[in-house]
Amino acid sequence: MAIPRRSFFKNSSLLLIGSLLVPVTGSSCSGSGWNRNDRRNARTGRLILSYKPYELHLKHAFTLATSSRTTTPVMITRLEYDSYTGYGEASMPPYLGESHETAAGFLSKLNLSIFADPFLIEDILEYVDSIAPDNYAAKASVDLALHDLIGKILNIPLYKMWGLDPARTPNTSFTIGIDKPDIVRQKVTEASGFKILKVKLGGSNDKEMIDIVHEMTDVPLCVDVNQGWKDRKEALEMVIWLKEKGVVFVEQPFNREDRDNTAWLTANSPLPIIADEAVQRLKDIPGLKGVFSGVNIKLMKCTGLREAWKMINYARAAGMTVMLGCMTETSCGVSAAAQLSPLVDFADLDGNLLISNDIFEGMKVVEGKVTLSDKPGIGTDVIKDIFR
Amino acid sequence: MAIPRRSFFKNSSLLLIGSLLVPVTGSSCSGSGWNRNDRRNARTGRLILSYKPYELHLKHAFTLATSSRTTTPVMITRLEYDSYTGYGEASMPPYLGESHETAAGFLSKLNLSIFADPFLIEDILEYVDSIAPDNYAAKASVDLALHDLIGKILNIPLYKMWGLDPARTPNTSFTIGIDKPDIVRQKVTEASGFKILKVKLGGSNDKEMIDIVHEMTDVPLCVDVNQGWKDRKEALEMVIWLKEKGVVFVEQPFNREDRDNTAWLTANSPLPIIADEAVQRLKDIPGLKGVFSGVNIKLMKCTGLREAWKMINYARAAGMTVMLGCMTETSCGVSAAAQLSPLVDFADLDGNLLISNDIFEGMKVVEGKVTLSDKPGIGTDVIKDIFR
Repeated sequence: MAIPRRSFFKNSSLLLIGSLLVPVTGSSCSGSGWNRNDRRNARTGRLILSYKPYELHLKHAFTLATSSRTTTPVMITRLEYDSYTGYGEASMPPYLGESHETAAGFLSKLNLSIFADPFLIEDILEYVDSIAPDNYAAKASVDLALHDLIGKILNIPLYKMWGLDPARTPNTSFTIGIDKPDIVRQKVTEASGFKILKVKLGGSNDKEMIDIVHEMTDVPLCVDVNQGWKDRKEALEMVIWLKEKGVVFVEQPFNREDRDNTAWLTANSPLPIIADEAVQRLKDIPGLKGVFSGVNIKLMKCTGLREAWKMINYARAAGMTVMLGCMTETSCGVSAAAQLSPLVDFADLDGNLLISNDIFEGMKVVEGKVTLSDKPGIGTDVIKDIFR
Repeated sequence: MAIPRRSFFKNSSLLLIGSLLVPVTGSSCSGSGWNRNDRRNARTGRLILSYKPYELHLKHAFTLATSSRTTTPVMITRLEYDSYTGYGEASMPPYLGESHETAAGFLSKLNLSIFADPFLIEDILEYVDSIAPDNYAAKASVDLALHDLIGKILNIPLYKMWGLDPARTPNTSFTIGIDKPDIVRQKVTEASGFKILKVKLGGSNDKEMIDIVHEMTDVPLCVDVNQGWKDRKEALEMVIWLKEKGVVFVEQPFNREDRDNTAWLTANSPLPIIADEAVQRLKDIPGLKGVFSGVNIKLMKCTGLREAWKMINYARAAGMTVMLGCMTETSCGVSAAAQLSPLVDFADLDGNLLISNDIFEGMKVVEGKVTLSDKPGIGTDVIKDIFR
């Protein structure tokens, strides 16, 4: 028998009362810390959320086992508090069910001004999550903006707030989509600086794809099947063949509901089998132990940084491999994920490199390695302000 | 197949290199933030650890099912970095195997000056943990001092750094030890402000203890058996009887190794069965799901705040009840635990109230509720400086 967590959000007036009880602490140094004595801040200290739709243009058409597209809709969020501004992002590839319309509908329901203190992160995000089910990317856009804001108020990058070592970031993979041989060769050439490549499988020419890439480079490969396989024995033979070709893990081989085949493959596979479509949020991970070797955690699927942190720690404690992924995103979303990346085994944080119209500048890939900026919060600069 | 977390501590020179790569960021406002330009800080920025043994005097002799004592040895740690000072504590009740001698031996092996940046919390604590096995309280004393230091550098309490709401702290129980009826009555009278009382059982007069307390107060009770029961059917009958007397949970009924009887009792009990002696660190929790309903997490057993935070999140995600406990401690250790208490279902944070020679002032119990100070870090003031 377990006792459920005390529910606190049946009445939003409680939130206001709770928030007002929080003492504002700190020095009177403007720009770097909290300001106890600044009357302007005390009077106007409210969270103001804005959002703008934006369309990402992809450098190459993005082909999965089930679809192909050249753009990704995103919603950019801005959270203001006194003189500080945090930015977030919802990236919404259409197959996940969110859109500019659903995100705007969700965000319009939020009233963050009931919170007097942005440091009430757990309460604020619990409130955001309680407003409507689903809307994972829209929720993440608020989580990201809030974390960016907090980091800017404290004037430290998020990795510092979390006690992480920026020298321990992993290499990121670069994704080679399913395509014609010439295009694949061109993409591999473009990816020459990367220390690990991710090849999308589940099409009709899986072995050809791998052979083309393997002939051109010695770096380790990983593969993402995107639920494309059906037969467990063929899958195991393929995994064994992939291992010989330098592949180090396999993502989502079967349909996300197909636990039997997945557990069998995981038990017999010489490579780790990583959940992607089969994992959404923290609550999904306990049930995946014994089915998959690990999980691919994405901010846009799990509602953001706070839940991602909990997922990483849970999966790690459960002895699972941890991977951090992304959608096609601006440097805002990718840099946010990068802040957590010192905690993970593998990163697939190339989403900003796949677009031609980024509006942020943030984390960089330096000789294949995720490289964090020393800027506060998520660690980005705005290079095109779409709110103007 | 799972891939182990990349090991980083085979060579401590790596740490130094990693640390030096960390950019020092922030404003030039002294006292509240990080100081990029202050040459004195840049030159002397090293972590300096000191420690002093201290003996806590208990107001009442402390009687468990297996022992009785009137003092508790503690080691107070001090961690200095530039103009900031953090304090920590190792509380070492003798039955757990640590002592002034073992703690001094352990702490003397640490060389924290290899870390150029105290914000490398994960690296620093991984290093501390790698120096020797066990020494849980000694490790916690470093974790506490480091967190206190970080909070003081940022000039915010730890609950703010973790995004927690100080209004959501739980009531704390107050412990009534096994004793003669008159002493028990005196203790219950002293505990009149508390909203939940914890009664130690496992002696020869369990029902008498409960009846005495229950006659004197209407507040909910919880019981800690400290491994004192042997028979599952007698235990279940006792749990059913306890529920009628207003008991809300039962801690550690059987020997910590006795998983069969515990799992059977948990499956049949009308009250949550909470692990205490059966849980030490994060790695223990996955195996307790299905055996216990929940866990009692103590900083002195789990190596400190960082691991406790991970344990709380893991247990919560696994659907387990979460309790936060303590040893007899100064207000340093208890206030540290209190910073995490907005995340838990139950708190047993009365350790500082059981001693007569506290050297810190910090969290208070106000009308039975854990009440956090707005001071930075762990939230304490030194009221007697034993380092002078």
